[in-house]
Amino acid sequence: MSNINYSHHQESSSDHETRGKTITCKAAVVWGPGEPFSVEEIQVDPPKQMEVRIKILYTSICHTDLSAWKGENESQRVYPRILGHEAVGVIESVGEGVEDMREGDYVVPVFNGECGQCVYCKSDETNLCERYRVNPLKCVMLADSKTRFWTQNGPRPIFHFLNTSTFTEFTVLDSACVVKIDSDSPLKKVTLLSCGVSTGLGAAWNTANVQPGSTVAIFGLGAVGLAVAEGARSRGASRIIGVDINPDKFIKGKAMGITDFINPNDVDSVSEKIMKMIKGGVQYSFECAGKLSVLREAFLSTHDGWGLTVILGIHATPEMMPFHPMELFQGRRIIGSVFGDFKPKTQLPLLARQCLQGVVNLDGFITHELPFSQINEAFQLLVDGKSLRCLLQL
Amino acid sequence: MSNINYSHHQESSSDHETRGKTITCKAAVVWGPGEPFSVEEIQVDPPKQMEVRIKILYTSICHTDLSAWKGENESQRVYPRILGHEAVGVIESVGEGVEDMREGDYVVPVFNGECGQCVYCKSDETNLCERYRVNPLKCVMLADSKTRFWTQNGPRPIFHFLNTSTFTEFTVLDSACVVKIDSDSPLKKVTLLSCGVSTGLGAAWNTANVQPGSTVAIFGLGAVGLAVAEGARSRGASRIIGVDINPDKFIKGKAMGITDFINPNDVDSVSEKIMKMIKGGVQYSFECAGKLSVLREAFLSTHDGWGLTVILGIHATPEMMPFHPMELFQGRRIIGSVFGDFKPKTQLPLLARQCLQGVVNLDGFITHELPFSQINEAFQLLVDGKSLRCLLQL
Repeated sequence: MSNINYSHHQESSSDHETRGKTITCKAAVVWGPGEPFSVEEIQVDPPKQMEVRIKILYTSICHTDLSAWKGENESQRVYPRILGHEAVGVIESVGEGVEDMREGDYVVPVFNGECGQCVYCKSDETNLCERYRVNPLKCVMLADSKTRFWTQNGPRPIFHFLNTSTFTEFTVLDSACVVKIDSDSPLKKVTLLSCGVSTGLGAAWNTANVQPGSTVAIFGLGAVGLAVAEGARSRGASRIIGVDINPDKFIKGKAMGITDFINPNDVDSVSEKIMKMIKGGVQYSFECAGKLSVLREAFLSTHDGWGLTVILGIHATPEMMPFHPMELFQGRRIIGSVFGDFKPKTQLPLLARQCLQGVVNLDGFITHELPFSQINEAFQLLVDGKSLRCLLQL
Repeated sequence: MSNINYSHHQESSSDHETRGKTITCKAAVVWGPGEPFSVEEIQVDPPKQMEVRIKILYTSICHTDLSAWKGENESQRVYPRILGHEAVGVIESVGEGVEDMREGDYVVPVFNGECGQCVYCKSDETNLCERYRVNPLKCVMLADSKTRFWTQNGPRPIFHFLNTSTFTEFTVLDSACVVKIDSDSPLKKVTLLSCGVSTGLGAAWNTANVQPGSTVAIFGLGAVGLAVAEGARSRGASRIIGVDINPDKFIKGKAMGITDFINPNDVDSVSEKIMKMIKGGVQYSFECAGKLSVLREAFLSTHDGWGLTVILGIHATPEMMPFHPMELFQGRRIIGSVFGDFKPKTQLPLLARQCLQGVVNLDGFITHELPFSQINEAFQLLVDGKSLRCLLQL
């Protein structure tokens, strides 16, 4: 346990005895690919210039954490490391120069930051910041190429993950990767906005711009795919076809606005089935599975002339895209979407308010809650396809 | 020669003795892959319902004709056949039901038709008609799956090509594939609007929507590539980089607004060279070469976050696109463009007027003129890279 008693909602900047000091607290450290998380005491440096230190309140687990934990990609095999990128927390202290947040503010960490100053942040056409965009290879802080986490004895550096590292009681982030939210935000649900749910909602709203009456197919009904469904439902889509090999996902999906289901194991061709259900195909398909064969089916499921396929899945294999250039002459389009094309610091506070207002309904996404110490059980629930999101309370 | 004396600009519907009758005239027939064109007498049926018969005045040769002549793709090896799809002509007679054109009207044949009635034609999002879109496999008329061309002795059917077949004194087309133009249009230049020049101009105007100050790279400086340059120039692009291995194209390109040239043989990497010339890369790249390695360089030459690559080249090989799905997460986009995204019957008449007004300057595109009887020499000029467009006068 931390030697500081940080209880939620009682945060006050005047209580701070930790500001400027190293904090000793618990974190779930990965020491090797697929090895159980070691919940152990670590040391967390104070934030440097334009950084903030956050007390994590809740964190959840996404497939990107799973992939990094398994070390599926060789470049991810950096240990010891603190994973985790979906969370909500409260600011413990801010580094020099941070002016848009202060101690006690409630915040959401984001893996795809926004500096607000670069040519990308100033453009309406992208949410990829020049310095703080998502980068799975990055494992140290940008300012000094060092870590802010250390093992208790040694000390030995513990590497960062995805601009965030939330599987710890305290973490240090660049302020560009931290979004301040209203203090009355529903904290558990807002955790979901850190990654998967924003990614799915934004893909429907921003990337595809689903309109009333639109037709949609979603390939892969994990949290991201179901968030696409919720995004499409909230925009008034007329048909939302969900595709998944796990029939359990169908029950969940129905509650989130999915109107039709296809289990690929039940049909010869998903795209042909969709063409029969909706003459010519859907307007928008979303690939949330990270498999090339699924991506091709998603592409073929859209209407020629104007169909748009949005890639959300993480494709870890080196294989190239399964499309012939002439196929693009049929007017179908493919586009990638990162963090739902939301500019995080500019747009996430409004999204958090919309959750409170009921514009989107995130009730179904948190399927399990466990104490942080049971992080290994939480991972197993995701591996087994039993959870959408398991919330860990710190 | 035809047994009817059809001289231009003296056309009058009252003179018609051919209406409803078979016409005997000369055509350039291909009898096998790469075999010299046989300019021989053929018979042309009268137009059927919703068809028109046209006296061709000028026709030119495009690389798609070259590819079909060589029989590069097995599916193209259908003989005897009349190729050709860039032309201007005058209506000799119209079939039953044709109301938007009449005898004596000047017209441009288009390989990518517009019926005006289908769900595609009624959509703003595509110029691909349900029935009359470009289809390289089609070799007969849609109405009865028969040809309107016959050998003089036999008779044996001669197959159609690309909704058009313009290497003949008279041809029959679906009225959906014929665009009426003003009688004072510059006929030679308007021939170019039948395919290549419209494709390039439209890719810059409609597909990419180049704006004043935009930065552009064009890979392959044939007629289509140079038409992209003219389209970008006329929109006020600030930098237009031309890329071609043939240095002769550079002289031509400069006159058409190209500001910078790169010969791939002079540099290690074209995309890296472009990144150095324009920080971060160009906003728009156009691939007009039909080679996958060129397509990849075109893709990498664009600015991450918002770069758009427009595919115009015909890729005849079966290889798939050389992109990894995760590369689309950098915000670069790829899209195909057919006929410059122009809806031909709706938009080409205005484009023809814009040529007359000097909005676009097509002076440099017609590099050679020959009589129709010298079609084999005209093909050789294109094969040798000596001509942009060689106009054949019938």
